[in-house]
Amino acid sequence: MTRLISRRAVLAALVVVSLAGSASAQTDPLPSWNEGATKKAITDFVSRETTRGSPDFVPVDLRIATFDNDGTLWCEQPVYFQVAFAFDRLKAMAAQHPEWKAKQPFKAVLDGDMKALAQSGQKGLLEIVAVTHTGMSVDDFEKLVLEWTATARHPRFKRPYIELVYQPMLELMTYLRTNGFKTFIVSGGGIEFMRPWTEKVYGIPPQQVVGSSGVTKFELKPDGRASLLKLPKVEFIDDGPGKPVGINRFIGRHPIFAFGNSDGDLQMLQWTAAWPGARFMGIVHHTDAEREYAYDRKSHVGRLDKALDEARKRNWTVVDMKADWKQIFPPL
Amino acid sequence: MTRLISRRAVLAALVVVSLAGSASAQTDPLPSWNEGATKKAITDFVSRETTRGSPDFVPVDLRIATFDNDGTLWCEQPVYFQVAFAFDRLKAMAAQHPEWKAKQPFKAVLDGDMKALAQSGQKGLLEIVAVTHTGMSVDDFEKLVLEWTATARHPRFKRPYIELVYQPMLELMTYLRTNGFKTFIVSGGGIEFMRPWTEKVYGIPPQQVVGSSGVTKFELKPDGRASLLKLPKVEFIDDGPGKPVGINRFIGRHPIFAFGNSDGDLQMLQWTAAWPGARFMGIVHHTDAEREYAYDRKSHVGRLDKALDEARKRNWTVVDMKADWKQIFPPL
Repeated sequence: MTRLISRRAVLAALVVVSLAGSASAQTDPLPSWNEGATKKAITDFVSRETTRGSPDFVPVDLRIATFDNDGTLWCEQPVYFQVAFAFDRLKAMAAQHPEWKAKQPFKAVLDGDMKALAQSGQKGLLEIVAVTHTGMSVDDFEKLVLEWTATARHPRFKRPYIELVYQPMLELMTYLRTNGFKTFIVSGGGIEFMRPWTEKVYGIPPQQVVGSSGVTKFELKPDGRASLLKLPKVEFIDDGPGKPVGINRFIGRHPIFAFGNSDGDLQMLQWTAAWPGARFMGIVHHTDAEREYAYDRKSHVGRLDKALDEARKRNWTVVDMKADWKQIFPPL
Repeated sequence: MTRLISRRAVLAALVVVSLAGSASAQTDPLPSWNEGATKKAITDFVSRETTRGSPDFVPVDLRIATFDNDGTLWCEQPVYFQVAFAFDRLKAMAAQHPEWKAKQPFKAVLDGDMKALAQSGQKGLLEIVAVTHTGMSVDDFEKLVLEWTATARHPRFKRPYIELVYQPMLELMTYLRTNGFKTFIVSGGGIEFMRPWTEKVYGIPPQQVVGSSGVTKFELKPDGRASLLKLPKVEFIDDGPGKPVGINRFIGRHPIFAFGNSDGDLQMLQWTAAWPGARFMGIVHHTDAEREYAYDRKSHVGRLDKALDEARKRNWTVVDMKADWKQIFPPL
């Protein structure tokens, strides 16, 4: 029998053994990313920046990576998850506010009338955010967020919202941290809506979360205990041209790696690209209606239009969700 | 001869050896602090918070320590060092602004007329800050700060300002970090004035510096390069009741250890004290006119009045600079 085993088969077997050996010696840090140009762009970049002697080597202190949240780290359809939280809060509070049954924009939310809600515009949304996000201490708000993330379910996927995070992006952030990067969230979402769960879900502690915020006010309660009250006044919108402002204010260093998914991330990517040296600019393009959603230039949520043009023009990395990602969400 | 060596001498020698052994096995992490109640309060607290099984044990993620800067980590006399920077900048810019020779508050600075300057009040100071701190990109401002810290000298100590940091506080921050704490600066000073040098001087990276800030604006230059312009508009004052607001905004967690030196730190200390569990609130009391300065209730810079009463009332730790510190500044 041995004589029947051809030299070719032996060589093939050796190749398999050798590949298996190499795989076990160096486990793929990005198993949910299909092999291809996108994955290679990421691993090549990290290797160039972190290899001593490489012309692009960057010391650990300067390895700053920033990620948008909605649509980049977790799903943002059919509405931003923070909007879903606000609607759920509003419904829970409605019993104490009978007047809302006749008053827009509250009536629209209670009736599930998305058309009337859309007519109330940004002003209406701000009113909803004001009544659901302010008038309590920052600590009481944190509790409300944690209650919601523990109980609310996404209408399509029937899973808690904080499970609808992108498995490939979780792997990417871990991979970057393993290579000495500090990972930051830079989101248009509310900073106090994200911080209660980002460490558990993304491995990103509160102090590495940058987001939009409302004004808070220091108070001494009658018993002398200090408290911070959330006021119904916008303090900072961390979106679009606000993202470089937020990065500068909170981080104080230029990112060398940035990932977004919409036109609201364009300026963060431009800001990252503006500094000398090798930089990584990435965009998640939602192309997978079957496993997640497909949307870009005409979407009301997470519109990706100008930033897609800019990415193509400047050779930024565009993730094709359908082609590049083996898996979208973490396994159940 | 051996018979003359008494048992007592042998025992004494053993004690010395044993003490020496213990000293080398466990080097004093705070060598510039004299032994006494203050030092003991610090080391007892850290031991209680970081010893597994202790009822006050706090996991590493929650070990947040915040420090005021002016008068707590570095000297703040005869004027806040950032004011000295602003005056030096103003003088350097004066050749391009001949009109300043006849216009207050600029004239007062150029003439060294501190009385006229005092008359211009906070409004005058803000005008000086506006012309010296804004109208350039954040990166150009960083360069100006680094030039100044490299060249300017303190009028009394004739040393660079960044050498006039308190050696005992440097040791304290290192000691805390060794014990798993994250150290943050929470200062009324300008965030962009501190960040260029805090990592080198204090071991605190830019993203762990909280401070007052001006508005910045994102711009795309004609060549498509992104830039952030500093505008002459105050965005946030991180002082007094602003400190808990800044801590909440930038850190998102409650400090368990906080150190200040003036009434501007009172609310930060109250905020730290407000949360259940063992907390450390410390105040540097400037009592050493010979080696540094002595000032408290009546000082125009770094006034310590209400916070001193509160500290005494609530048993916070008050550092008596003269008695508690072996050394003030790092050796030349």
